[in-house]
Amino acid sequence: MTAPSGFGRHVVVRTIERARLELVDGLAPIGTASVHEAIGKRGYLGAELRPIQQDVRIAGTAVTVLVHPSDNIMIHAAVEVCREGDVLVVATTSPSSHGIFGDLLATSLTTRGVRGLVIDTGVRDTMDLRQMGFPVWSRWVSCQGPIKAVAGSVNVPVTIGGVVIEPGDVVTADDDGVVVVPRDEAQWALDRSVARLDTEAATRERLAAGELGVDFYGLRQQLADLGVEYVD
Amino acid sequence: MTAPSGFGRHVVVRTIERARLELVDGLAPIGTASVHEAIGKRGYLGAELRPIQQDVRIAGTAVTVLVHPSDNIMIHAAVEVCREGDVLVVATTSPSSHGIFGDLLATSLTTRGVRGLVIDTGVRDTMDLRQMGFPVWSRWVSCQGPIKAVAGSVNVPVTIGGVVIEPGDVVTADDDGVVVVPRDEAQWALDRSVARLDTEAATRERLAAGELGVDFYGLRQQLADLGVEYVD
Amino acid sequence: MTAPSGFGRHVVVRTIERARLELVDGLAPIGTASVHEAIGKRGYLGAELRPIQQDVRIAGTAVTVLVHPSDNIMIHAAVEVCREGDVLVVATTSPSSHGIFGDLLATSLTTRGVRGLVIDTGVRDTMDLRQMGFPVWSRWVSCQGPIKAVAGSVNVPVTIGGVVIEPGDVVTADDDGVVVVPRDEAQWALDRSVARLDTEAATRERLAAGELGVDFYGLRQQLADLGVEYVD
Amino acid sequence: MTAPSGFGRHVVVRTIERARLELVDGLAPIGTASVHEAIGKRGYLGAELRPIQQDVRIAGTAVTVLVHPSDNIMIHAAVEVCREGDVLVVATTSPSSHGIFGDLLATSLTTRGVRGLVIDTGVRDTMDLRQMGFPVWSRWVSCQGPIKAVAGSVNVPVTIGGVVIEPGDVVTADDDGVVVVPRDEAQWALDRSVARLDTEAATRERLAAGELGVDFYGLRQQLADLGVEYVD
Amino acid sequence: MTAPSGFGRHVVVRTIERARLELVDGLAPIGTASVHEAIGKRGYLGAELRPIQQDVRIAGTAVTVLVHPSDNIMIHAAVEVCREGDVLVVATTSPSSHGIFGDLLATSLTTRGVRGLVIDTGVRDTMDLRQMGFPVWSRWVSCQGPIKAVAGSVNVPVTIGGVVIEPGDVVTADDDGVVVVPRDEAQWALDRSVARLDTEAATRERLAAGELGVDFYGLRQQLADLGVEYVD
Amino acid sequence: MTAPSGFGRHVVVRTIERARLELVDGLAPIGTASVHEAIGKRGYLGAELRPIQQDVRIAGTAVTVLVHPSDNIMIHAAVEVCREGDVLVVATTSPSSHGIFGDLLATSLTTRGVRGLVIDTGVRDTMDLRQMGFPVWSRWVSCQGPIKAVAGSVNVPVTIGGVVIEPGDVVTADDDGVVVVPRDEAQWALDRSVARLDTEAATRERLAAGELGVDFYGLRQQLADLGVEYVD
Repeated sequence: MTAPSGFGRHVVVRTIERARLELVDGLAPIGTASVHEAIGKRGYLGAELRPIQQDVRIAGTAVTVLVHPSDNIMIHAAVEVCREGDVLVVATTSPSSHGIFGDLLATSLTTRGVRGLVIDTGVRDTMDLRQMGFPVWSRWVSCQGPIKAVAGSVNVPVTIGGVVIEPGDVVTADDDGVVVVPRDEAQWALDRSVARLDTEAATRERLAAGELGVDFYGLRQQLADLGVEYVD
Repeated sequence: MTAPSGFGRHVVVRTIERARLELVDGLAPIGTASVHEAIGKRGYLGAELRPIQQDVRIAGTAVTVLVHPSDNIMIHAAVEVCREGDVLVVATTSPSSHGIFGDLLATSLTTRGVRGLVIDTGVRDTMDLRQMGFPVWSRWVSCQGPIKAVAGSVNVPVTIGGVVIEPGDVVTADDDGVVVVPRDEAQWALDRSVARLDTEAATRERLAAGELGVDFYGLRQQLADLGVEYVD
Repeated sequence: MTAPSGFGRHVVVRTIERARLELVDGLAPIGTASVHEAIGKRGYLGAELRPIQQDVRIAGTAVTVLVHPSDNIMIHAAVEVCREGDVLVVATTSPSSHGIFGDLLATSLTTRGVRGLVIDTGVRDTMDLRQMGFPVWSRWVSCQGPIKAVAGSVNVPVTIGGVVIEPGDVVTADDDGVVVVPRDEAQWALDRSVARLDTEAATRERLAAGELGVDFYGLRQQLADLGVEYVD
Repeated sequence: MTAPSGFGRHVVVRTIERARLELVDGLAPIGTASVHEAIGKRGYLGAELRPIQQDVRIAGTAVTVLVHPSDNIMIHAAVEVCREGDVLVVATTSPSSHGIFGDLLATSLTTRGVRGLVIDTGVRDTMDLRQMGFPVWSRWVSCQGPIKAVAGSVNVPVTIGGVVIEPGDVVTADDDGVVVVPRDEAQWALDRSVARLDTEAATRERLAAGELGVDFYGLRQQLADLGVEYVD
Repeated sequence: MTAPSGFGRHVVVRTIERARLELVDGLAPIGTASVHEAIGKRGYLGAELRPIQQDVRIAGTAVTVLVHPSDNIMIHAAVEVCREGDVLVVATTSPSSHGIFGDLLATSLTTRGVRGLVIDTGVRDTMDLRQMGFPVWSRWVSCQGPIKAVAGSVNVPVTIGGVVIEPGDVVTADDDGVVVVPRDEAQWALDRSVARLDTEAATRERLAAGELGVDFYGLRQQLADLGVEYVD
Repeated sequence: MTAPSGFGRHVVVRTIERARLELVDGLAPIGTASVHEAIGKRGYLGAELRPIQQDVRIAGTAVTVLVHPSDNIMIHAAVEVCREGDVLVVATTSPSSHGIFGDLLATSLTTRGVRGLVIDTGVRDTMDLRQMGFPVWSRWVSCQGPIKAVAGSVNVPVTIGGVVIEPGDVVTADDDGVVVVPRDEAQWALDRSVARLDTEAATRERLAAGELGVDFYGLRQQLADLGVEYVD
């Protein structure tokens, strides 16, 4: 009855391979919707993760944390392994609204150059966090604070919204939500996204000039094939 | 076994009768709560449609779209039949959070003078939409983009939040949500709303001067009739 | 078959004992998360009560209202018993989204020095309320207006989010939500909160200087006790 | 400022045209999923209306009721206009969970030959209702009883789950939910449904014999067109 | 800075005053909807607490437990203070779906004569619990098991669904949900409920004989007063 | 700009390695809660997947399907690769309630010896499915049928409720929900589960004899350490 490797172990993985920061910085200003499309409609963490601020767009490398609901001891453990350019990504083992992250943890992360937080549970001190300029995407805002009693892990794969996030992946986030790009696809995702931006700009120009999408995208035939009739 | 008229047909109705724009423009600044009350507590599309912007108040004539969840081909078809003063109203045949509308469609609609979007599913590119000044009321914000594969209809009656919206109806929207006024009631609704605003202004003045609502509205007798006792 | 005292009675209690306003004013700027922690992780009304404005922090003494869903006659009755420094707290006997409070009631409350509204159902006229500077924490924003037909009570104990709120308790509210402090704990809560702010400030300084939380809070031993392993 | 016809009126329409009962009885045993498909994927009242019993399948003619949330006075008014073969369909003007229907109303309806209840709010006395053999599809089960204070209407068009239900329409219901067939499509719907059942039976036989759906429905070409690859 | 009495204390109260078991047993067969009405539409724990079994009706005296979400150490502590005729009532300090109660705890409770469980979080081993005949009303069914790490209390007042439950109160439960009667109102509640059952029986007989509720309850005048018109 | 391996590809993987059926059959009768505990509180697909039947317990090997919401073409493609002992596991790329599986697909799967369905969207024909004895765990029951228009994949890793399910993994399901055991842990999981059942049986016997859990599990010291006080 030998346990499978890793069973029951709780680990803090100190050393992870991160996506190259120049690629991350390239992806930052693009916008999550465009990145999501560019990489094949993948990586979106779902419509229930909402920003606590408006008009902020970031990208960073994921340091992942898996916590028991309402417990933030592993977030404290994670601070130490964060570095310039990271985004902290916190998942829970079951649904919870507790505000297990606040301005003190944000202070710590800021000193290490962490760019923001993505958390699939609650956050608090939101006025302070906005004032500090520390951006957060969370499922809940809640005063209810954390316990520090149950083990979890840092820098293991986690899932949010059906997406598997590996440590070191690229996290992009803005007002539309959060999109994660696998680390080894960062260069390709950047190329694709930039190309897409170019195409979109050209499209936008033609649409702005009054050209119709049904013509531009060639949808008239498809509408006919689908049996859509035009009537007056 | 002759099919009922209209069964299984997907149509784009090009020509609709719209509420007169001067009436629409009269209703625009009034506020949805007042319009809703003025027309007999009707036409409210429900508390789950939320604006992506703040402090914007519009009114326009409805161009309606019925789409399969996650599919926006009919929105593209709808652009062509929109004109100055319209608001696009998109309903789905079942619940979905997909972001099937973004800044490119908004660009097209802007060129045609469309004033905004009401959509009972998701929207994306929200930073851009706010920057463009294109207002949106939606159920979700989501990166997940559309397919273009399933037929639907344009300018047929649709329902959102239990309210039937006919093409050409007046759509009013602000931070409290969306209220729809039937096309042929627009004049009456405007008259009633303006009258209500006047009454409200007079009421506000008296309340601001310290008069009590229980006196002003004559509620003391009703409270007594309901058996409410005053105690110390 | 004598009814239990109070059974079936609907009352407006005119005279209540309130927390001292100087204590209330002391608690106002502290922040709900800190107060919540300071008093033993109690009094939080839950993550579904959200502010309609941003970056506003208040405290006041509770005037409580228990209403039938969709009915606001008791809110009108409550205005009369409000005074300088109060916050109106409205609970319903069952879930409802109706917008039973708007700018006219806010006008009345403002004349009496009421500082804001906490309401476990809907609110409307939100643009106006923000413009007036009358802050609101509500579960819903909704156009759907009230009836005035069913009895309720004013200044009886009510519960929101599992917390019992007594008339005269201290209500503190900001962007993280609403926290209620029992009236007779106000002094103690203020002392504890101020002490906590001091501690937090000292902690913040050390964390900002780069000290790690795991060291500062002495969590390394606990992580070890929990069996958390550090790996590379 | 003449009000639009019907504005602000609350009516009990005594006489309605109903679908012919022999058609209704023909549709009863077919199953909602098959009827829904047969009439063009229309008429489904949504996945949140659930039966309080299992393995019951009915059809009847709709008597519709529109109530204020938590108020059942109009249900009492509706009893009188019900007759043999009807199904009572109750919609509310806003979301509510109140149990405004129980075994006494069911007793009344049973004496009039009403076949069941579809209600977009709550029901109570569910043990009794099952024992009586009176089937119910509801959104909630709740003890919280009704008030009798607010006007509504009987036998006006109502909407549930985005579907408009006219008095006299055919209501079919089973464990999959509720599907409504417009009155004047009843014959056509029955013919189509019976034809569909025949097709389904033939299909079932071939599938049961091991034929594959991808072959039977000719999906292999479509899978190839969609770019789906088979790998080992 | 003296703490308020009870602040921060976690207690197991061993001795509580319970409602008399003969009153409890009198209330058991009556049905929650009738009890709820009889005592003035109070005490209902809400529509989200659902039974895991069907057609079971119980009453017992409340032993209350307040737990941290996902933690069941206090349920273990509560077993010892339970006795014949009790119902265990478990509330959490924040929302959670964890299944913190299963067949082993039910085995313990059964040996002590406990009649069932009301739990505002999750339960598991539901097949076994039904087989044991141990009835449960819960918010969730979930495999996810408990931790035993955080303090709570036994036999302190708790709230579920906005209702305050004191130790020793009468808990009545059936397929419509859970209704709690304050301990010192048990006799009165029983008398009122029995009287109500009698009235209901008489009413049922008359309704079953075809008398109309609008006549029986005298609603015709009220309908007229509300302006409801009868039309053909 | 070479695409990452697998990008944009939709595949049907015909050959997968499955857990050994004797291990699967060993796990079948154990119960999901026990398996979940035995393997370290892992693998639970969440409390929102509910069975459409009661008192059924199965285990099988996963054939996985990833579908676009509302589209079942890939389920048809999956039938062919199923075999004796499998359980079909269907995930969607975004939330949807459509009933994309019914009795005809169940007929096909039954001929191939498939033991049941786990589906993170809707199912229909539930009366028929129960009658056929084909068990289903789903998120929704819904009449709304499928389209066959969008590509997906068969036998790729999918996630439901935050759990990654690989083709060939062991799926166990009963009234508490669904728990997935990684294929290469099946033997170990079976050993652990059987051992756990033995322990539980011994525990149950002692608890049934009246021994207290606080003694049996040695919790008295922990309660004291947590500061829990016993009072009368």
